[in-house]
Amino acid sequence: MHDGDYTQLPHDRLADLRRALLYRYGAVAARNLRLDMSRGKPGRDQLDLSSGLLDCLTKDDYMSRNGIDCRNYGGLDGLAEMKEIFADILSVEPSEVIVGGNSSLNMMFDNIASNMSHGVRDQVPWQKQGKVRFICPVPGYDRHFAICDYFHIEMIPVPMTPEGPDMDEVERLVAGDGMIKGMWCVPVFSNPDGCVYSEETVLRLANMRPKAADFRLYWDNAYRIHHFEGELRPLPNIIRECEKAGNPHMPLEFFSFSKISFSGAAVSAVVSSASNCEFILKRLSVQTVGPDKLNMLRHARFFKNAAGVYRHMEKMAVLVRAKFDCLDGVLRENLGGKGIAAWNNPGGGYFVSFDTLPGCAKRVYDLCKNAGVALTAAGATYPYGRDPNDSNIRLAPTYPETDELRQAAEVFCLAVELASAEKLLGGFNG
Amino acid sequence: MHDGDYTQLPHDRLADLRRALLYRYGAVAARNLRLDMSRGKPGRDQLDLSSGLLDCLTKDDYMSRNGIDCRNYGGLDGLAEMKEIFADILSVEPSEVIVGGNSSLNMMFDNIASNMSHGVRDQVPWQKQGKVRFICPVPGYDRHFAICDYFHIEMIPVPMTPEGPDMDEVERLVAGDGMIKGMWCVPVFSNPDGCVYSEETVLRLANMRPKAADFRLYWDNAYRIHHFEGELRPLPNIIRECEKAGNPHMPLEFFSFSKISFSGAAVSAVVSSASNCEFILKRLSVQTVGPDKLNMLRHARFFKNAAGVYRHMEKMAVLVRAKFDCLDGVLRENLGGKGIAAWNNPGGGYFVSFDTLPGCAKRVYDLCKNAGVALTAAGATYPYGRDPNDSNIRLAPTYPETDELRQAAEVFCLAVELASAEKLLGGFNG
Repeated sequence: MHDGDYTQLPHDRLADLRRALLYRYGAVAARNLRLDMSRGKPGRDQLDLSSGLLDCLTKDDYMSRNGIDCRNYGGLDGLAEMKEIFADILSVEPSEVIVGGNSSLNMMFDNIASNMSHGVRDQVPWQKQGKVRFICPVPGYDRHFAICDYFHIEMIPVPMTPEGPDMDEVERLVAGDGMIKGMWCVPVFSNPDGCVYSEETVLRLANMRPKAADFRLYWDNAYRIHHFEGELRPLPNIIRECEKAGNPHMPLEFFSFSKISFSGAAVSAVVSSASNCEFILKRLSVQTVGPDKLNMLRHARFFKNAAGVYRHMEKMAVLVRAKFDCLDGVLRENLGGKGIAAWNNPGGGYFVSFDTLPGCAKRVYDLCKNAGVALTAAGATYPYGRDPNDSNIRLAPTYPETDELRQAAEVFCLAVELASAEKLLGGFNG
Repeated sequence: MHDGDYTQLPHDRLADLRRALLYRYGAVAARNLRLDMSRGKPGRDQLDLSSGLLDCLTKDDYMSRNGIDCRNYGGLDGLAEMKEIFADILSVEPSEVIVGGNSSLNMMFDNIASNMSHGVRDQVPWQKQGKVRFICPVPGYDRHFAICDYFHIEMIPVPMTPEGPDMDEVERLVAGDGMIKGMWCVPVFSNPDGCVYSEETVLRLANMRPKAADFRLYWDNAYRIHHFEGELRPLPNIIRECEKAGNPHMPLEFFSFSKISFSGAAVSAVVSSASNCEFILKRLSVQTVGPDKLNMLRHARFFKNAAGVYRHMEKMAVLVRAKFDCLDGVLRENLGGKGIAAWNNPGGGYFVSFDTLPGCAKRVYDLCKNAGVALTAAGATYPYGRDPNDSNIRLAPTYPETDELRQAAEVFCLAVELASAEKLLGGFNG
């Protein structure tokens, strides 16, 4: 059955279509599926690529190259060998890197917590200055938004363009409002829309003139080396560009091995100016006697250097591309030419950003849920879970096995078709 | 040379003594020693006991008993097998345990940060109520004090007695002052004085009637199973006793494997009422996508169960006791009967609490430092680093090898003798 563009169908044809779709949906729902496209979790095949991490240390191998017994306390800023790998990947100096635990999200949370309660570099704590606001490019990452929400930081959505956040709007906002203290950026394969910021966008961000002297750019470079299609277009280095622009302390760059090695047991890092790092270490020295250096040593042994990481990511790319191709294939096959859906087909990252007809995303989410297919909640890609068009859904194809992914994607397509038919008929109960 | 009680010596004998000690000190200082009794760090021999942790997982061993792939994201409250081990050791239910990363200090920091900014169980944030105060038994743990200091929490010192904190004083304080929001306790082998709280002390703590409804008892049970001399006197269970007393949400108990397995790469836990745990997990869900479950699995594989941990700690006891015996021997030999020093000889824990004559601790610290022996800073065992008597020094004998420990202890004794002679002569330059 191919019906062309649904939006052009007469009412009776649509009604027939809806009946047929409902019938198919009923059959699918009865199958009690349990499929999951909700989170950016790597599949088992991806994790297997790092299985060498599990046994790369031996009983006698626990000393770092600087003679640190990694089993004992200490080493607040991380092992030199891991700092070097992070620095090489991000084209910065090892002295600009602090290596953390298994969660870069935690480093972001902590930096914001610190700025709220203790201020940026001993300036007035954000929380004492009034209602703090952050610029949130949309669609965006729900966990970034959750941190803002937790600290009662008001989120100001700014639309994404194919070049990155709408910079006219961003520049206007930061220059005019001294309570705008931060901005979230996922510059490479942005979550969820897969956008890679243009060179111009990066340079304009680095050269911003925020009204707030304590404005901070949260540069979550989680997918920096996660291209699976061709070469990655080189991006200006945010740390260096901010320096050149006279904003040396503005950016905090975050990176993580969570989607390189083991998502639950990787290492993360924050990169910033030397004096920002000092402030971070001052807080860290109160928080902990030191990070897990053995896990850093494991990573250093397994990957050896940045080149080792890149070779690893080439293998990773093959696996991830297969999942994206599978998803894209099912979407094209089932929804192509029907006028009810738009989606990207990114060359990297973890997500497909999918747009339904306005007003259909929640319905699609519910239909999928009832049929046993978990999606990221509709609206999650917007601050406060409020998608003004109720149309954006983030699809995460990596976690399911390919067979399961195909099934899940087919259920999803059916849900999109059904929700669209209902919508075009004038309501879900129409 | 044995001179009996220095405090009874006539001035000229003291002057001769000081000259002789200065001469010996000069010779020691010229040796350029680099010895360290400053921190409670395990020695290499202690770490070697856990070397099996380094290779106990294999490429195919990453699933938890509940079928969780420990390599992937998730599992915010920790692996069931580790919750069980913590619960068995602390005689609580696994559902009352949240397993964290490698630092229980971080869990304490985070709980206080949370209460400051978000309040205890959705009550008014501490920071919005005025100047927050904590009861700090003294001498106590400098890192506890550093957390208070960081959050501008006023520290109220309460003296330790051989039974634990002076409970008359504690009860009076918490009942009278609604801004007293917390109290630090190290109930077993208290840092640094090695005190084990009496049953009466624990029961009185559990039955406190704090004026502040959002008062919290920070029960840092770091040395719960770190006895190296005989059996540990059983202590009432703080979680159960607080429950019985109608204070179910008051205690937060912290425990860590940092001084059981690898100090830098262990697992920690917080234990509290089910609904406290819910609040902690709510914050955790914003902070991270989950803890390092592989390291939990390593610990579960290596120790197997609580009995395995106890067997391990029996071996540990032999090593730690040797260090304490060595230190105590040197102290007795060099300082016994001279009337210038008092110290404890605890049956467990990590520290010897040493008291000089009033006004000598800083001088001893400096003399040791100049001779290449690192001590915990004099005053560190008191809030704000202010020891009113300038007499307490925390000695940590575990980290150095036995030979080094003996050397360090001998230098320390010489410094104590010299500082005492100077003091008794009426001043350092007398």
